[in-house]
Amino acid sequence: MASSSENANPELRKDAVWNRWVIFSPARAKRPSDFKSKSPTDPNPNQQCPFCIGHEHECAPEIFRVPPRDPNWKIRVIQNLYPALSRTLPEPQHAPSGSLQTGFGFHDVVIETPVHPVHLSDLPPTEIGRVFVAYTERIQQLASHKSIQYVQVFKNHGASAGASMSHSHSQMMALPIIPPSVSARLASMKDHFDQTGKCFICKIQREDLLIDSSTNFFSLVPFAATFPFEIWIVPRYHSAHFHELDAEKAVELGGLLKLMLRKMSLQLNNPPFNYMIHTSPLHSNGSELAYTHWFIQIVPQLIGIAGFELGTGCYINPVFPEDAAKVLREVKVPE
Amino acid sequence: MASSSENANPELRKDAVWNRWVIFSPARAKRPSDFKSKSPTDPNPNQQCPFCIGHEHECAPEIFRVPPRDPNWKIRVIQNLYPALSRTLPEPQHAPSGSLQTGFGFHDVVIETPVHPVHLSDLPPTEIGRVFVAYTERIQQLASHKSIQYVQVFKNHGASAGASMSHSHSQMMALPIIPPSVSARLASMKDHFDQTGKCFICKIQREDLLIDSSTNFFSLVPFAATFPFEIWIVPRYHSAHFHELDAEKAVELGGLLKLMLRKMSLQLNNPPFNYMIHTSPLHSNGSELAYTHWFIQIVPQLIGIAGFELGTGCYINPVFPEDAAKVLREVKVPE
Repeated sequence: MASSSENANPELRKDAVWNRWVIFSPARAKRPSDFKSKSPTDPNPNQQCPFCIGHEHECAPEIFRVPPRDPNWKIRVIQNLYPALSRTLPEPQHAPSGSLQTGFGFHDVVIETPVHPVHLSDLPPTEIGRVFVAYTERIQQLASHKSIQYVQVFKNHGASAGASMSHSHSQMMALPIIPPSVSARLASMKDHFDQTGKCFICKIQREDLLIDSSTNFFSLVPFAATFPFEIWIVPRYHSAHFHELDAEKAVELGGLLKLMLRKMSLQLNNPPFNYMIHTSPLHSNGSELAYTHWFIQIVPQLIGIAGFELGTGCYINPVFPEDAAKVLREVKVPE
Repeated sequence: MASSSENANPELRKDAVWNRWVIFSPARAKRPSDFKSKSPTDPNPNQQCPFCIGHEHECAPEIFRVPPRDPNWKIRVIQNLYPALSRTLPEPQHAPSGSLQTGFGFHDVVIETPVHPVHLSDLPPTEIGRVFVAYTERIQQLASHKSIQYVQVFKNHGASAGASMSHSHSQMMALPIIPPSVSARLASMKDHFDQTGKCFICKIQREDLLIDSSTNFFSLVPFAATFPFEIWIVPRYHSAHFHELDAEKAVELGGLLKLMLRKMSLQLNNPPFNYMIHTSPLHSNGSELAYTHWFIQIVPQLIGIAGFELGTGCYINPVFPEDAAKVLREVKVPE
C-alpha cells in the first residue's frame, strides 16, 4: 500500500492538548502499513499466578469484587502488593507546598478476569464495560479522601510495556498532587477555552483522522500523535470526569475499546501497549469542568525513548497521523 | 551494605529545575547497591561499520573533522544519514505560530573516535575534551541560522538506550522551536530567580548528594532525580551556554565525565545510558542568561517507562538520591 505521505518532508505539529511539539519524520521509517511489533509475545504460564481465581489468599487485601462477595468473581479490585505510594501514612491535611511531602496515596490493581489466558480484548463488550464500571466505583471511593487530587487509571500489557504480571490487569494510582502532564493539559485546555469559548476536545473529530465510531464515542489518531499508531477514544458528549460514565455507556465504550485493541493487535503484530485514562482532577471547580473532557489514550510500544526525547520532551513520530488512521480504519477484524 | 533509607516510606519530591514531582518508592526496590543492568552487552562487530576510519565514503556528508583535513582524524562531525529534520527545506523566516510548521533543522552525528571498539569512557580526558570542543564549534556554526532556536546534544549508548550504531558517537539536533522540556526549565528557573535573585543551579551543590568534583565542575545526584542513579555534571561558575566552554575546561570536564561513566559502568554492570547537555536557547536575552546554567544529565537505563509515567509525566524512582550518591561516591575506579 502506498502511503499518502510517503517520502513527505518532515513536519512539526503542536499537540494542543498538552501544548508540546512533535516531529513527524516519515523518511526515517518504513511504510506505515509495514510497522510490526518485534517484541516477543509474553510467556503466559498459568502456574503460581496469584491473580487467578482460587489464589486470592496470595494477593494483597481485596478492596471489592464484582459481583460482591461472589466466589465466582468476574473482577477483583485489590491493593498492589508493591505499592508506589503508602495508604498507611498519615493523610496530609492540605495541598503540598514546597518541594517535599510524604508519599501518601493509593496504588490499586484491577484484575480484569478470573481466567489466566484471557486478555481484556478477548472479553465481550459487556464484560469490558464492567471493568470500566469497576474503575468508576473505585474512583468514587478514592474521591472521599480530601488530599487525593487525581486518580490515574492505566494498563500495561506486555513485559516491555511495564507489565510484571501476565494475567490481564490494570492499575489505579491515587495521587496527593496534580501530576505534571495533567497540569500542562489543564493549562492548555484553559487557554483554548479562554480564546474560543469552546472545549477543545469537543471539536477534535476530523474525517481524515477518524478510525471508528459508535453512538456516544469515536476513535481517532490525534493530529499531533506523540507515538506511531497512538489511538484516542473520545466521548462525543462533553464530560470532564471519566468516573461519571454510566453502565450503559460503559458497555458501548467496551465495544469500541475491544475493536481498537483487536485492530492494533492484528495490524501491529500483537504489540505490547499501554492505555491511560485522562480525566479531570477530583476536586475540579466549575470552570475547569467546562474546558476539560476525558478520553482514553492507547499507545502501542513500537519505538523506544532515547536521549533526544529525554532531553527535550519532544518526540519523533515516524508515521503521519492521517496515514496511521487510514491503516487502522481499513483493518478487517474477523467476527 | 545497608542503605540509610532502607525500608523508608515513599516520598514525593519536586524537581525545581523542570518543576515536576517525582515519587521515591524505595520499598519496591532491591537495595541501592544491588542495582545492576540486565541489558545484554551490545554486539560490537567491526565489519561494515561506516563510522570506522577508512569508510568515510559510506557516510552522509562530513561537516568538519578534527584535526582539519587530516586523513588520520580523531573526530568527525557528519550529517545523519536518516535525519529527523531536513536541512534542505526553506528556512522559516520567523518563529512558529499556530500548530504546524515545516521540519527545517539539522541532525548531525559526532563520531567520537576513529576506532570501532573504543568507547567514549576509554578515551583520555584530553580526547574527551576534544569531543566537547567539537560540540561547541558545531553549535557556533548552527547559531548563524536565525530560525534555529535550540541545539540538543545527546548520546545514546547501547541498543536499548536508542543507539542504532555501536561505534561510539553522539548526536546534535538543531531545532526551529524551543522544545517543551526547555520551556518548562526556563519558566521554572525564571520563577526561582524572580523570587530569590539567584540562579538555582549555582546553589545546587549539597554534601549528601555530591559524588565527585574538580576545580571547575562537580557531579551530583539531583535532589529529585527522575531516574535511579541519574547523575548531573555541573559547572561551579555561572554559565548559560555550554558552547562557551573553552578548550582547557573541556579537558577538565572530560576527566569528570570519564570518571562518572566508569563509576556507572563498574557499579551498574555496564548499563545502556543516555546523556543530554541542557543549555540555553541560542538567542537568549540578558535576563535569561542570568537565570539559566548549563549542565550534563547522565541517565543509566535501568527501569522502563510504562502507563503511569506516560499518563502523568510523573516518574517513580526506586532509589533515594542520597543513597545513589553514597554508592557512586564509594565506587573504586582502578587506575
